[in-house]
Amino acid sequence: MHGVLLEVAYDGTAFKGWAAQRGERTVEETLAGAIRTLDPRASAPRGTSRTDAGVHAERQMVAFDASLAIPPRGWVLALNQHLPDDACVRSARAIDAGYNPRFASRGKQYRYRLLLDRVRDPLQRHRAWRIGWPLDVEKMRREAEAIVGTHDFAGFRSSHDARDVTVRTLTRAAIEPLEGRVLSVAIAGNAFLYNMVRILVGTLVDVGRGHLGEGTIARALAAGDGDRRRAGMTAPAHGLTLESVLLELPSETGMPWPP
Amino acid sequence: MHGVLLEVAYDGTAFKGWAAQRGERTVEETLAGAIRTLDPRASAPRGTSRTDAGVHAERQMVAFDASLAIPPRGWVLALNQHLPDDACVRSARAIDAGYNPRFASRGKQYRYRLLLDRVRDPLQRHRAWRIGWPLDVEKMRREAEAIVGTHDFAGFRSSHDARDVTVRTLTRAAIEPLEGRVLSVAIAGNAFLYNMVRILVGTLVDVGRGHLGEGTIARALAAGDGDRRRAGMTAPAHGLTLESVLLELPSETGMPWPP
Repeated sequence: MHGVLLEVAYDGTAFKGWAAQRGERTVEETLAGAIRTLDPRASAPRGTSRTDAGVHAERQMVAFDASLAIPPRGWVLALNQHLPDDACVRSARAIDAGYNPRFASRGKQYRYRLLLDRVRDPLQRHRAWRIGWPLDVEKMRREAEAIVGTHDFAGFRSSHDARDVTVRTLTRAAIEPLEGRVLSVAIAGNAFLYNMVRILVGTLVDVGRGHLGEGTIARALAAGDGDRRRAGMTAPAHGLTLESVLLELPSETGMPWPP
Repeated sequence: MHGVLLEVAYDGTAFKGWAAQRGERTVEETLAGAIRTLDPRASAPRGTSRTDAGVHAERQMVAFDASLAIPPRGWVLALNQHLPDDACVRSARAIDAGYNPRFASRGKQYRYRLLLDRVRDPLQRHRAWRIGWPLDVEKMRREAEAIVGTHDFAGFRSSHDARDVTVRTLTRAAIEPLEGRVLSVAIAGNAFLYNMVRILVGTLVDVGRGHLGEGTIARALAAGDGDRRRAGMTAPAHGLTLESVLLELPSETGMPWPP
């Protein structure tokens, strides 16, 4: 078999998330279908992040094992012929067969978009969470400083997350203005719990609008009791984009196409 | 009757343009329907720009005459309840009954988005024209300088445009990078011919990729024969956004909501 590593982008709006679910339109199953069409004996795709319904991705990393020896450029062009408009292979490269990017992930960067506006904006409706109240952005910046570092994030995860180890290291939590009235929160770290980014952003917004006091995040992290109620709300999925995944690659990994 | 002036935004993807056409989903007819639902005796809406199918708007200006005395905030909230997700009233203000923004337009600004990428991007598919070839951006900047000023743009319009006067004054033609791999062309002027912005952008791209020589725009404007073949291609509609319209307002115009 021939291992292939893909960068996959998608508009999450019309997908029920990454992970295959019976009877639902998911990115994993959509991509698997395109691969099967070209190479019926290929393995199932192995993704890095199980993004939720509505969450977007610029570079989700996905590996699979092909039975056919198709060069990277061929996979990009052929898979994109068979993928719908809202999903796309951005690049491909050769990698060891059996490589699982999930276990090779060393870090991820997410970006959450907030639209600061009294009225809705049709051009941002699938990409940004609209905040109609005034936000104290400087307060949010100070609050975000508490996020960076190694902490037990047990209080910042959905009740559906049952992992035993909840300590994570975050390397970045930056509030950055984008085009127009869009404010973004860039969050990077070694790994994330379920809904962790959305709860962190929801808490920053709760602090920024004055619903929660400054120091809420620091206090919740220090408490160490994993009580979800110490944090703020869960921000909606559609504002979130998985921007990139840092992988540990085997030394024999080929060059990507496009370069 | 009570005159009302609206700022209207829309994602043009699923509309057949602004202007009502029998049996088609247009922004004009969609807005007219929302107004009629609230005030069956209101006039039809009068828009400023007849944007094409696929073209977006951040602030299309629209006036209508209401039979009901509803304050601006009420119009914004009530119309948005009745408008679909891809169209929205951004603000409203009181204005003289019978005011027609089309005749009061003193200038418009458009922005055209180019996605510079070898591979398609699902998150930009409705907003930017993807250019897969290398572009010489500095050459495009020099070419754009020829656009600004008062010129006869007869060679830069669709054959469907039958206006007699084709002299227009453009005040701005700026090539500006946006987020990510998106390059934008901002074009402002007193008025535009049919497809004029899209032909100007198509010509800039043709020059930037080397299909047309530098000086193409200056030569076409100087020729003064209105020959469409001197210019480049017409850029596709989905990259274009009407950003704003400058109106001459009667002195009694009310304050907008939101402020």
